[in-house]
Amino acid sequence: MTWLKNVWYQAGWSDELEGGKSFTRRLLNEPILFFRGESGDVAALLDRCPHRFVPLSAGAIEGDKVTCPYHGLAFGTKGNCVVNPHGPITSSMSVRSFPAVERHGAIWIWMGDADAADPAKVPDLSYIDAVPDTAMFRMYIPTPTNYQLLIDNIMDLSHADYVHATSLGGMMTDAKVRSREEDGKIVIDWTADACVPAPAFAPMVPLDQRADVWIEVTWQAPGVMVLVNSVVPVGQPRNPNVQALHNMVPETETSTHYFMCATRSFAMDSEDITAAMKASAEQAFLREDKPMLQEQFRGMDGKDFWELKPVLLPVDAAAVRVRRKLDMLIAAERD
Amino acid sequence: MTWLKNVWYQAGWSDELEGGKSFTRRLLNEPILFFRGESGDVAALLDRCPHRFVPLSAGAIEGDKVTCPYHGLAFGTKGNCVVNPHGPITSSMSVRSFPAVERHGAIWIWMGDADAADPAKVPDLSYIDAVPDTAMFRMYIPTPTNYQLLIDNIMDLSHADYVHATSLGGMMTDAKVRSREEDGKIVIDWTADACVPAPAFAPMVPLDQRADVWIEVTWQAPGVMVLVNSVVPVGQPRNPNVQALHNMVPETETSTHYFMCATRSFAMDSEDITAAMKASAEQAFLREDKPMLQEQFRGMDGKDFWELKPVLLPVDAAAVRVRRKLDMLIAAERD
Amino acid sequence: MTWLKNVWYQAGWSDELEGGKSFTRRLLNEPILFFRGESGDVAALLDRCPHRFVPLSAGAIEGDKVTCPYHGLAFGTKGNCVVNPHGPITSSMSVRSFPAVERHGAIWIWMGDADAADPAKVPDLSYIDAVPDTAMFRMYIPTPTNYQLLIDNIMDLSHADYVHATSLGGMMTDAKVRSREEDGKIVIDWTADACVPAPAFAPMVPLDQRADVWIEVTWQAPGVMVLVNSVVPVGQPRNPNVQALHNMVPETETSTHYFMCATRSFAMDSEDITAAMKASAEQAFLREDKPMLQEQFRGMDGKDFWELKPVLLPVDAAAVRVRRKLDMLIAAERD
Repeated sequence: MTWLKNVWYQAGWSDELEGGKSFTRRLLNEPILFFRGESGDVAALLDRCPHRFVPLSAGAIEGDKVTCPYHGLAFGTKGNCVVNPHGPITSSMSVRSFPAVERHGAIWIWMGDADAADPAKVPDLSYIDAVPDTAMFRMYIPTPTNYQLLIDNIMDLSHADYVHATSLGGMMTDAKVRSREEDGKIVIDWTADACVPAPAFAPMVPLDQRADVWIEVTWQAPGVMVLVNSVVPVGQPRNPNVQALHNMVPETETSTHYFMCATRSFAMDSEDITAAMKASAEQAFLREDKPMLQEQFRGMDGKDFWELKPVLLPVDAAAVRVRRKLDMLIAAERD
Repeated sequence: MTWLKNVWYQAGWSDELEGGKSFTRRLLNEPILFFRGESGDVAALLDRCPHRFVPLSAGAIEGDKVTCPYHGLAFGTKGNCVVNPHGPITSSMSVRSFPAVERHGAIWIWMGDADAADPAKVPDLSYIDAVPDTAMFRMYIPTPTNYQLLIDNIMDLSHADYVHATSLGGMMTDAKVRSREEDGKIVIDWTADACVPAPAFAPMVPLDQRADVWIEVTWQAPGVMVLVNSVVPVGQPRNPNVQALHNMVPETETSTHYFMCATRSFAMDSEDITAAMKASAEQAFLREDKPMLQEQFRGMDGKDFWELKPVLLPVDAAAVRVRRKLDMLIAAERD
Repeated sequence: MTWLKNVWYQAGWSDELEGGKSFTRRLLNEPILFFRGESGDVAALLDRCPHRFVPLSAGAIEGDKVTCPYHGLAFGTKGNCVVNPHGPITSSMSVRSFPAVERHGAIWIWMGDADAADPAKVPDLSYIDAVPDTAMFRMYIPTPTNYQLLIDNIMDLSHADYVHATSLGGMMTDAKVRSREEDGKIVIDWTADACVPAPAFAPMVPLDQRADVWIEVTWQAPGVMVLVNSVVPVGQPRNPNVQALHNMVPETETSTHYFMCATRSFAMDSEDITAAMKASAEQAFLREDKPMLQEQFRGMDGKDFWELKPVLLPVDAAAVRVRRKLDMLIAAERD
């Protein structure tokens, strides 16, 4: 399998490195060690000593260096050897390092050609920066299935009426749906006028009232999706009151790092509303989507998605566009 | 590996669908969902929604339809889509269904060409229908080994003297053995005159008397074996007082559904004798054969049976005939 | 993968067969049953009945024969069939047997061409025979990694300063190191004059004194390494006061039987010193080396050692020589 390489992948949330913490995460099937150097910048090193291959994360991280516990070689934040107790240091004694930046409260890594790693290409999630911490919450949901199946899930929200019948669903099956491509992004939007709002939308519209719901989902490669939700009482003008990132990052062929971050533009200092919205999200994404995606993975029985000849429904239009676009981008990169 | 396809395989016992129950069983490495429709007929559907591949068994079965829990598509007993909440129903929206019938208290499925699925080809086990429930018992023993090794085990009963020394054995090693082919079936019979009967035969002959024992085993493709036992006091005429099905159905390359059903022609309403015979069978097949077959599987170490160059003994004659016959049938089907 | 075949491999310690015990051990990925026949000689049989492949170790061993529990065939210490309840015995009814000898308190097996199995080729470990039992201890450490990585570990003792910092280490990084080839063996020696001796060396030199330490490690194919340690107060003549075998025997591609035996030439009847030295060894090899080697195995992520392009340090010189020598020997055997 091939993944898109020359693109920024989210590796985690910035707070995972708080207080001198470090972590190792497998991304595109490579184990990567993340830690902050003395400057505060994030270092991302292949988690494998180049000498005898012990994971560097088994050693000690102090300041700008990580020391391999097997023979004492130490490496700096750019992967260069900085301590060799057994002789001179040469340039070949380095561990692969990856460009890494922080944006929008997240850590991003570039796994392709380092020279092409332009921080300006990090997906623009400035909507996250625009709200205070009290008006957002983040989640990380490791999920044992291929990342494209998780993208499909978000690009086709019709599933909400079945998988999330009592939390987020009830409005999608009868919604008007349109999808389009725009600047290399795939956009799908769902319009459900005068519908019974889902229970999770209680913070936006009283549950005994009808609502006008509009949800626009924008995908960009490889697995970054932003949902803009407008949930307002019937007849009121659209108001993008909730925006949410759903970012699917391949760990391996068959497992995915699912990063989620939701912000809102109302009651921005209410801890209660944050707690209620987070509880809804956990119910939906952790306790409803994740088990369903695991069932799907089991049902696929190790077979390839297209080989199984999936029935295509109109609601799959955007998801299929994303798959084709991703295939094209990967093919282009390979050539 | 290839299995024989155009043949009826036993999928279960009819009572597994009692009271509206359903079950999923993997057969020839395909997961199949079994349930009864409103007519009472057995439906057998590939347990995988054709849209996004979630197992249908994760959804709800009501009357003649099963509903996928992911997007709400529903399918009838013949696999046709009967509900599509997202648009029109087309003929491509079907899940594979398999011919299934009930005979002799068992559920049978045809995994090959559906047009060739003639119920008249279900193995004739009418001996089961001829006795009341009080004169029989059934077992299901899932066994982690290849089904052909389980066939070998029944076609060579000499193992009983070693594996079942204190339950069913003691008479086979010195028995007269003959095997033959008859109408495409392989038959082997064992004659042990004036022998000390095995403890399990106490219901037929007092344990302090000698017995004339005659056991005929008839195999038909793919793994259906019927044992007719005559166990009588010395000098009395043959009397087929116990008949037993041993049916080996491939779950995967390395696991087998072992179905067993024994009937008797004496003391047909004795619950005590049924209980005693069932206890003997559990001891022999579950607690003696199954562990030995697992040891054998471990001993084969993932290697092919013939590549290991098995020593062939005279008692293996029928088992080897079965293997060659099965190979021929599979080869013929492939051409 | 190919292993060297025409060579003696250690299969265990003699005391593993004490009191009529037997054991099965996988060597070069073949399961072998070891037991003593009536003569006291070690029998080594493939642990797989040639008839229907049940492991013979599941049966009974009595005197010179082992009986398969499935059909009652029995085999002698040379693998010949000695009992066939089902007909005549022919020469084809034998199980593979392997030449096996006992030397130096260990059991040795020859997995290659039996005609070439000359007991004189067993590695000379007569230093073990030269000391009483009170002056030695043995260990067996099954380790889930490739045996060549375990050889690397012993051929490069510089790791001791990092992995065994508080037990065996502290002297190697600054030691003088020389390696050479001698009669087909690879030898590396480490000289650390006037060093602070490792805590484990307390039996040889008081911990508040400086010591002259000299360690010579001699490898011979396939994975037999003998360490001769001289640890003496500064200025005293060399005295090889501790000798230790570290023998790495492939179980599979990814697991190793690690046999260790240490002897000393002082305080030869002190149980306390034996206990102290064994405790040090357990700390170092079982609780420090083994976890580090498992980390290394994890870090290699299923990849080949050379494909990972290891950085080579001067301290690796002997380990690399061993790898190249072993490759040559294996290639020569294949031709």
